[in-house]
Amino acid sequence: MSDEKSIDQNITDQKKQQNALAKNRLMGLTEKLYNQFLDEVVPNISLPSRTKENIRYDEKSHVWVYGDRESERSAKTVKGAFQLLKSTHAVDFIIKNHLQQDRGSTLRELYYISEGWDIAKFHEQPESDRLIEDLEIITGLQREYFHMRPEEDGATMFGPIRIREQTKRGSRTIHCQEDIGESGYQIPFNVENIEFLDHDAKFIIAIETGGMYARLIENGFDEKYNAILVHLKGQPARSTRRMIKRMNEELGIPVTVFTDGDPWSYRIFASVAYGAIKSAHLSEFMATPGAQFIGVQPSDIVEYELSTDKLTDKDVAALRSELSDPRFESDYWKEQIKLQLDIKKKAEQQAFAGKGLDFVTDKYLPERLTDMGII
Amino acid sequence: MSDEKSIDQNITDQKKQQNALAKNRLMGLTEKLYNQFLDEVVPNISLPSRTKENIRYDEKSHVWVYGDRESERSAKTVKGAFQLLKSTHAVDFIIKNHLQQDRGSTLRELYYISEGWDIAKFHEQPESDRLIEDLEIITGLQREYFHMRPEEDGATMFGPIRIREQTKRGSRTIHCQEDIGESGYQIPFNVENIEFLDHDAKFIIAIETGGMYARLIENGFDEKYNAILVHLKGQPARSTRRMIKRMNEELGIPVTVFTDGDPWSYRIFASVAYGAIKSAHLSEFMATPGAQFIGVQPSDIVEYELSTDKLTDKDVAALRSELSDPRFESDYWKEQIKLQLDIKKKAEQQAFAGKGLDFVTDKYLPERLTDMGII
Repeated sequence: MSDEKSIDQNITDQKKQQNALAKNRLMGLTEKLYNQFLDEVVPNISLPSRTKENIRYDEKSHVWVYGDRESERSAKTVKGAFQLLKSTHAVDFIIKNHLQQDRGSTLRELYYISEGWDIAKFHEQPESDRLIEDLEIITGLQREYFHMRPEEDGATMFGPIRIREQTKRGSRTIHCQEDIGESGYQIPFNVENIEFLDHDAKFIIAIETGGMYARLIENGFDEKYNAILVHLKGQPARSTRRMIKRMNEELGIPVTVFTDGDPWSYRIFASVAYGAIKSAHLSEFMATPGAQFIGVQPSDIVEYELSTDKLTDKDVAALRSELSDPRFESDYWKEQIKLQLDIKKKAEQQAFAGKGLDFVTDKYLPERLTDMGII
Repeated sequence: MSDEKSIDQNITDQKKQQNALAKNRLMGLTEKLYNQFLDEVVPNISLPSRTKENIRYDEKSHVWVYGDRESERSAKTVKGAFQLLKSTHAVDFIIKNHLQQDRGSTLRELYYISEGWDIAKFHEQPESDRLIEDLEIITGLQREYFHMRPEEDGATMFGPIRIREQTKRGSRTIHCQEDIGESGYQIPFNVENIEFLDHDAKFIIAIETGGMYARLIENGFDEKYNAILVHLKGQPARSTRRMIKRMNEELGIPVTVFTDGDPWSYRIFASVAYGAIKSAHLSEFMATPGAQFIGVQPSDIVEYELSTDKLTDKDVAALRSELSDPRFESDYWKEQIKLQLDIKKKAEQQAFAGKGLDFVTDKYLPERLTDMGII
């Protein structure tokens, strides 16, 4: 009891509310199963079917959402009964070991932890990962509310914003230009622990490569244009997308995305803006539908005569499939993708270095951002 | 001139000395070539041959070093003349654009920058990467002195040490427990910009996986044992190895390495302790020969009955090759590797979670560190 009290003193009211909410929703699941037993109903839960056929692009909200099809986990079958048993073990573990003690574990650890669950043990990690996704859908909460961590954490950011991060050792107030080293502020796995204090930011640039992120920091682009630079590190982690989404939604800061000029990079942009098929249930938390693409645009390759590589057969196939992808259903994208198929070339964002180290920050970005109406 | 003055005011004396040293050594190369022209000698430079045959494990210093074989870059051949021309362009660029302006660029950017060098343009990035390695060997300096950055930067650390990082925006004093978020201090690409102010650390644990690094932070292991936790992120980056080396050498803090229990992870340990064949010229900067391996040891797999996977054929081949690798030439390693070949199993460090979330920090690590004489 005294242990619980001392834990309570170290966490904020907001965190306590989050923990209570998660506990409440998770208990809702077990109560439902319990009441089904009492009512002599075979225990079961329904949740949206997560097959590709049941996921559609919502034209209104511009993100991926689930359709109406449902799948059932029911104790009528041995497989279903095992799934429900494992779910209750997981709920029990999350409430007692995570929420009540304000601790967490990785998805990998959860898989090992189940060794103590006897016949409810997971047989491989994808099984426990899927179960946590089930719990996200059932509760309508992100797994971060259950204190489930990914194996590796997010990327870094750099810009005119002061945040307060709630850590296990107390709160830390950090200005993301003045209080950090040259590599930036490391975004924690649980972005809900961050409170925004104040900022001077006019816009956010999310950047695919570490090289370009470092270039913009070195050239002082964040200071000159009051920009928050976020390093995407390729396909961005959940925490990175959530951080961008929160700054956009809560602070009203416009979001732009700067990647290489190839079909895979356009998908990085799309995952920031529209979400991903495999995490459709998280679109409302993760996707920033207003995000705008800066480049590298195929038309930039032509205009600036950038150093290029030839498109591979795989690149061409990916571009063709983007032509029928609802996320790229606009005149702008159709024109750019067709141009790229025509010139058969792709370019990296660092190719701007061929014009000098300042070209990208003195000329390219200011011109593009002006065209886009951002500055 | 006034530009150079204002730059001068923003950088420390130490940084100025580093820049002057780099300029001096690089100019030495071009002076040598110039004098060869004056003396009517065909310009040439010699450097250690970087073939596998010319690299040996030094039993005394316990790191990889080059042998006596040399290879020559000489203007006698067209290929050699091009190499020398490219070298002088690179030296010119580094001195004028990096050192004199206190700026830097990535290896990828250098490749694009050479577009402006006419016939001295690089044809692919491995060519420019190799040239920078040549310059490291010729000058005896790490490429960080030339302000050459890698594409992605290093890992994070967390522990009782206060550092001062020299950034372009001035110096930043950061305590690596008190002034940072939950994810730790992001190690910058150039560790020479860091000054150690004070610390309470008894030892360093370099940790392979993000999951285990987060576990030790959450369990407060760094506080309880005065340990600096360094996340290796798999095979560690140069900056991560250099940071560990500097803390070990300058502060006298013992280094331990905690990885998964498989042959690939033993190589991660070896790269921290002994360096890597492909960067033998950097061993003295990067390798920490006193580093000790904590585990996961094959004997731990047996003793703690950890959850395991079967060794694959590739694992077995890698273990066999380690039996003849001079870095694993000790009774301890021979015994452990033979045991593993015998039990045919491997285990991840997160498998300790099967014994509870505190087992690794309350029991396993304290016992191992006591056995090793560290605590």
